[in-house]
Amino acid sequence: DGDSSSAVVPFSFAFSDFKLVKVLREDARGKLVTLHGTVGDKDAVVVLERKAFDIPVLEECLQQTTVKETLQNDVYSTFDVYSSGSIAHMKATLIHPATEKHISKYSDREPFIVRETPELYRSVVLPSIQENKFSFQWVYNILEKKTESERIVAEDPDPEVGFVMVPDMKWNRENVESLYLIAIVHRRGIRSIRDLRQEHLPLLENILNKGLAAIEEKFSVKADKLRIYFHYQPSYYHLHVHFTHVKFEAPGTDALRAHLLEDVIDNIKMNSEFYNLKTLSYIVREHDALYYAFQDKKYFV
Amino acid sequence: DGDSSSAVVPFSFAFSDFKLVKVLREDARGKLVTLHGTVGDKDAVVVLERKAFDIPVLEECLQQTTVKETLQNDVYSTFDVYSSGSIAHMKATLIHPATEKHISKYSDREPFIVRETPELYRSVVLPSIQENKFSFQWVYNILEKKTESERIVAEDPDPEVGFVMVPDMKWNRENVESLYLIAIVHRRGIRSIRDLRQEHLPLLENILNKGLAAIEEKFSVKADKLRIYFHYQPSYYHLHVHFTHVKFEAPGTDALRAHLLEDVIDNIKMNSEFYNLKTLSYIVREHDALYYAFQDKKYFV
Repeated sequence: DGDSSSAVVPFSFAFSDFKLVKVLREDARGKLVTLHGTVGDKDAVVVLERKAFDIPVLEECLQQTTVKETLQNDVYSTFDVYSSGSIAHMKATLIHPATEKHISKYSDREPFIVRETPELYRSVVLPSIQENKFSFQWVYNILEKKTESERIVAEDPDPEVGFVMVPDMKWNRENVESLYLIAIVHRRGIRSIRDLRQEHLPLLENILNKGLAAIEEKFSVKADKLRIYFHYQPSYYHLHVHFTHVKFEAPGTDALRAHLLEDVIDNIKMNSEFYNLKTLSYIVREHDALYYAFQDKKYFV
Repeated sequence: DGDSSSAVVPFSFAFSDFKLVKVLREDARGKLVTLHGTVGDKDAVVVLERKAFDIPVLEECLQQTTVKETLQNDVYSTFDVYSSGSIAHMKATLIHPATEKHISKYSDREPFIVRETPELYRSVVLPSIQENKFSFQWVYNILEKKTESERIVAEDPDPEVGFVMVPDMKWNRENVESLYLIAIVHRRGIRSIRDLRQEHLPLLENILNKGLAAIEEKFSVKADKLRIYFHYQPSYYHLHVHFTHVKFEAPGTDALRAHLLEDVIDNIKMNSEFYNLKTLSYIVREHDALYYAFQDKKYFV
């Protein structure tokens, strides 16, 4: 690494002296970019990285910001956050008013890997999902175009195989290399991949084909750059598919949570009951409703 | 998620109205922090995240910065980068003068997702693996205790179902929350999960059971904290299993690379030919041997 055959003359550096030649690497998740450029008549490499937040001075830091709302839906709002000048260096998602459930969902909690057998699904997980009576009103708002309609990337109104594709809140819609879209099915009552059988193949193949076509048309991103997957467990129990750019290390792409759509299709084709019979491994965290459900059944020893 | 039983009154938000109660979660790698606070008399959750760099305006953005040197060593310098005010929101590493080697090392190689059918495995991948004639001498040195013997965590000398478990180089062996161990099988000639059939179940179950027992005994880490998986493609074609702590975001845990050992066992039990018949998705990168192999067969369009 320390290849310094020519003598290094100390110099004082400012970015006004740096002429960009090429972006060598972008890490959207790590908020990092690597640049090739020149300083004077010599080549230079710059690794530029946003800093992690400094907790002790965070409040003071936030006092100096202004915000501009970018989206509002139900209790959720998103903002661009400006510390000064005309370029926003931060973004924020606000949940207000927030319930205990929201606070717990966004907290760091001890993880446990669960091996969910079909029997555990029926005796522990399904009753817990049914008991929690999640509201899907915000999902129906999107499907019925009451909110976010101007953000729709693709849609197929068919009640059996149709879906609406919208950008995920984690994507700014500017940089295609951090592309993150969600396809939400119109059909109600499919909670997760656990419910998928042969009868759903036309729905799954429709999402795959029309989703890919729309993304290529609108963003010029091809199939070989797209990670397409379900979460199990999902964060809400109305079937939806994640499309993320392969260069974007989105949260929830771990093998303990992400199930590739094409694998799901293949598995169901091989055996319609695959997801009715398969033991599925995933992480539950302390204070999750599911954590308590498993604890009640003495799953953890 | 959308628990909105109470009517939501639109309001205009500024961080000067936000009173911090507690930091719920910090993600230093993702430059993200989750906060619990209050706005008025109601609870609020804020997810605050630095933005990824916006390449089109990056140069303009950099012109407006000032830098302060924090370190200088040979061709390497590091800086705090201020866009304004007294708090640095970015940091930079400068390599100057930079050689071709530096530029190449810091460059990204373009990723492509491949859908490897059994036919593509036989016609493209297997010939490429065989042509490359990887040396396994370093693996055999470990198995024969010629190197790293003092590092062995578990072993079973049986030639059919035995293995040696050693720490991965990414683990410092101090913090159990970043535990990373590799179990390497004694049996030769199993290149990857593609080769696994029913006859290998005793081997796989032996690694799982004895590996878990050794980790619990030596490090007091239980099964429900361990992510246990194969890589496909692996980085070397002699069968081995990764054991990592669930809290450690190890590279290669993405659903496009990691295959959970317990899923592999279940799939083979369901169908001995599962990995002979399954299409497997993974990422290849420009300049990989496999990338060229697929390119030669006009796989990429």
